[in-house]
Amino acid sequence: MDTHIISIGTELIFGQTVDTNAAWLTRQLAGLGITCAKHVTIADDRAAITSAITLASTEASLILMTGGLGPTPDDITRFALADALGTELSLHQPSLDQIAAFFRRRKLPMPDPNRVQAMMPQSADPIENTCGTAPGIHAEINNVDLYAMPGVPREMQAMFDRDIRPALSHRRLAHGSQDRSVILQHSLQTFGMPEATLGDKIADLMAPGRNPAVGTSAADLVISIRMNANASSPEEAKGLINADAAEIRRRLGHVVFGEKDETLAHAVARLLVDQGKTIATAESCTGGLIAKRLTDVSGSSAYMIQGVVPYANEAKHRLLDVPPDLIEAHGAVSPQVAEAMAANCRRLADTDYALASTGIAGPTGGTPTKPVGLVYIALADTAKTTVKELRLGETLPRQTIRDRTAKIALNLLRLRLIGCS
Amino acid sequence: MDTHIISIGTELIFGQTVDTNAAWLTRQLAGLGITCAKHVTIADDRAAITSAITLASTEASLILMTGGLGPTPDDITRFALADALGTELSLHQPSLDQIAAFFRRRKLPMPDPNRVQAMMPQSADPIENTCGTAPGIHAEINNVDLYAMPGVPREMQAMFDRDIRPALSHRRLAHGSQDRSVILQHSLQTFGMPEATLGDKIADLMAPGRNPAVGTSAADLVISIRMNANASSPEEAKGLINADAAEIRRRLGHVVFGEKDETLAHAVARLLVDQGKTIATAESCTGGLIAKRLTDVSGSSAYMIQGVVPYANEAKHRLLDVPPDLIEAHGAVSPQVAEAMAANCRRLADTDYALASTGIAGPTGGTPTKPVGLVYIALADTAKTTVKELRLGETLPRQTIRDRTAKIALNLLRLRLIGCS
Repeated sequence: MDTHIISIGTELIFGQTVDTNAAWLTRQLAGLGITCAKHVTIADDRAAITSAITLASTEASLILMTGGLGPTPDDITRFALADALGTELSLHQPSLDQIAAFFRRRKLPMPDPNRVQAMMPQSADPIENTCGTAPGIHAEINNVDLYAMPGVPREMQAMFDRDIRPALSHRRLAHGSQDRSVILQHSLQTFGMPEATLGDKIADLMAPGRNPAVGTSAADLVISIRMNANASSPEEAKGLINADAAEIRRRLGHVVFGEKDETLAHAVARLLVDQGKTIATAESCTGGLIAKRLTDVSGSSAYMIQGVVPYANEAKHRLLDVPPDLIEAHGAVSPQVAEAMAANCRRLADTDYALASTGIAGPTGGTPTKPVGLVYIALADTAKTTVKELRLGETLPRQTIRDRTAKIALNLLRLRLIGCS
Repeated sequence: MDTHIISIGTELIFGQTVDTNAAWLTRQLAGLGITCAKHVTIADDRAAITSAITLASTEASLILMTGGLGPTPDDITRFALADALGTELSLHQPSLDQIAAFFRRRKLPMPDPNRVQAMMPQSADPIENTCGTAPGIHAEINNVDLYAMPGVPREMQAMFDRDIRPALSHRRLAHGSQDRSVILQHSLQTFGMPEATLGDKIADLMAPGRNPAVGTSAADLVISIRMNANASSPEEAKGLINADAAEIRRRLGHVVFGEKDETLAHAVARLLVDQGKTIATAESCTGGLIAKRLTDVSGSSAYMIQGVVPYANEAKHRLLDVPPDLIEAHGAVSPQVAEAMAANCRRLADTDYALASTGIAGPTGGTPTKPVGLVYIALADTAKTTVKELRLGETLPRQTIRDRTAKIALNLLRLRLIGCS
């Protein structure tokens, strides 16, 4: 079953918005054993959308579309779809009632432009939107099923989960033996080993044509190793994935910190909860990012006691008892101040651990001796305080320096929690 | 000049990574007056990449590719490109020297697999990578220019800026009068008005076929209004954009908070700097996110004094003097506690303003009277403290609740700073 995903939106083709929907949908399809052959992105142009639909209906066996179902004049997917189907739009009263009810629940008047969202191509069926005003559209074109969904990711996801996924599962069963293959995906997340070194250690598993297909991709210091297994049953696919995952973990050791969507914060959270330990943070250059990541995880109140962001020098004294002479003598960006921040933070919060950061995130504020990208991170526990100097590079953007600092700090804590630092 | 962008990566087609490169490149091309007709995404499959390159060379007048130039066995863009060109790969010694120098500067040994990155199709030219190990590749196929760049966004962007943008500008000039059109893009960012209402107010400007083309897109409470003007000179394009932007600002008033990539934090930062005011934060449910956003902006030490994340109840007392009986009487998630957090935070930090948040970000921790999504935000200045109750909805994901809380809080401060709240 070859699926094409068509993403509609001038903001996508003009690069003002990044399309996350195609990626999400492909992931869901893989879970159903359906491969996606092509992603195509087009602007809000009625003729271009119509011809893309027509072309896809001759190439694909399933078409998923997102975007262009909103209430504003630039939303024209419904018109283009009607053109491709050779039909007209007409008002679908139950959809209009649902849209009106959506506004009533929010105690808001329904703006008149929202009426257009209840207009449907005559041979198509609406799909209810349970968390927004744009119903989806299901149509059949050249005997190919087409599902048009709203572009707002949350609404699209809810609609796919509630109505489209069950329809596709059902359809797959109906297709019978000709389409029994299962695709199972898994991934492992690593931190701290260069991609080439890592690739070298698992090069045999990454050989082209092998099943599972194993690949790596790098995103700001985190290297992901993904595995895609093809099999005739879910059990067989799972067996293949499990064997590879175990072998990769064996070869890479503590470089692997988690699986699938897990972040370093998830890994740290799991270790803190398992060990019944608590943490506090004292952040200057990361400005709250480490605390934010530690509390991204639901249930974080089990380990997160407090964080401080002593951005001004006087705040380092006020919030953390860092002596003004220490700052005077060594500067706010120094191993001595990082150490005092972490040690005092842990003592004042009465936690098992504390993480501190101080550095120059740029692009301004660098000097020849303390350039942009110079960061000190410190980790305190009840026995000792470790300070690490990072030189992240003067040319990195501010957000990258902050992001990497937070990741390296969380990884330092992770390694301490598993007894490796 | 019709450009195709081809993104290579199994992690993209399988939805494990979102492609931000195509969006970035389209934006850069628009700045050069070059429109992008198609984005296509394909897996790390040698035959599929080869045929996509061949197809594009018959349809497009310029091909930009990203991804698949890494050192691991799944990186096969160079092989596929050689196939499409009908040639072989051979070692390019200067590229190998550059890769070796990259590792030497980092005082690391060069892993052997990185050698493949210096292999080039015989009729192609390498493009230096100044911040990574993967050189790009420039080739000509069926008289169409093709540029293959690494998939790591930072490396791709640096390579485009340094070598490809100048080449494309030069090429445009050489093409002469047949291709004089200028495309200018602009966008305004808004907060606080529903998309349909906003669309209704500017419906005439959004009419299909109008120049500039005006469209809206929504992303987690921020509605962007984008304008794309076509003109025969940059001055004419600028005039068209300026007229529309002024008209939209006139109709929407303080709902417009910024332009282009500006966030609410940028808007707040500009107002704080202009007015010489300072800020402190006290965050429970947002866990440092408001402080993080306020310090995303370079130069934030001009206004950001300190932040605290009093996650545990005892930390609310320790860091903010919130009386334990107040928490006992009303609960940590209450207007009373939010008010005390903001007022005490401002007093202790001695700032002009303080923002506070306390709420239930979920997915656990909700009760019938205090459901997930119930959040109190408070804004204190020297005269008063304002508390706002938010009911963001029990079904929203944790990160969305935290994101929206931070945005609504920053917008509250923005409106105060411009005298509208």
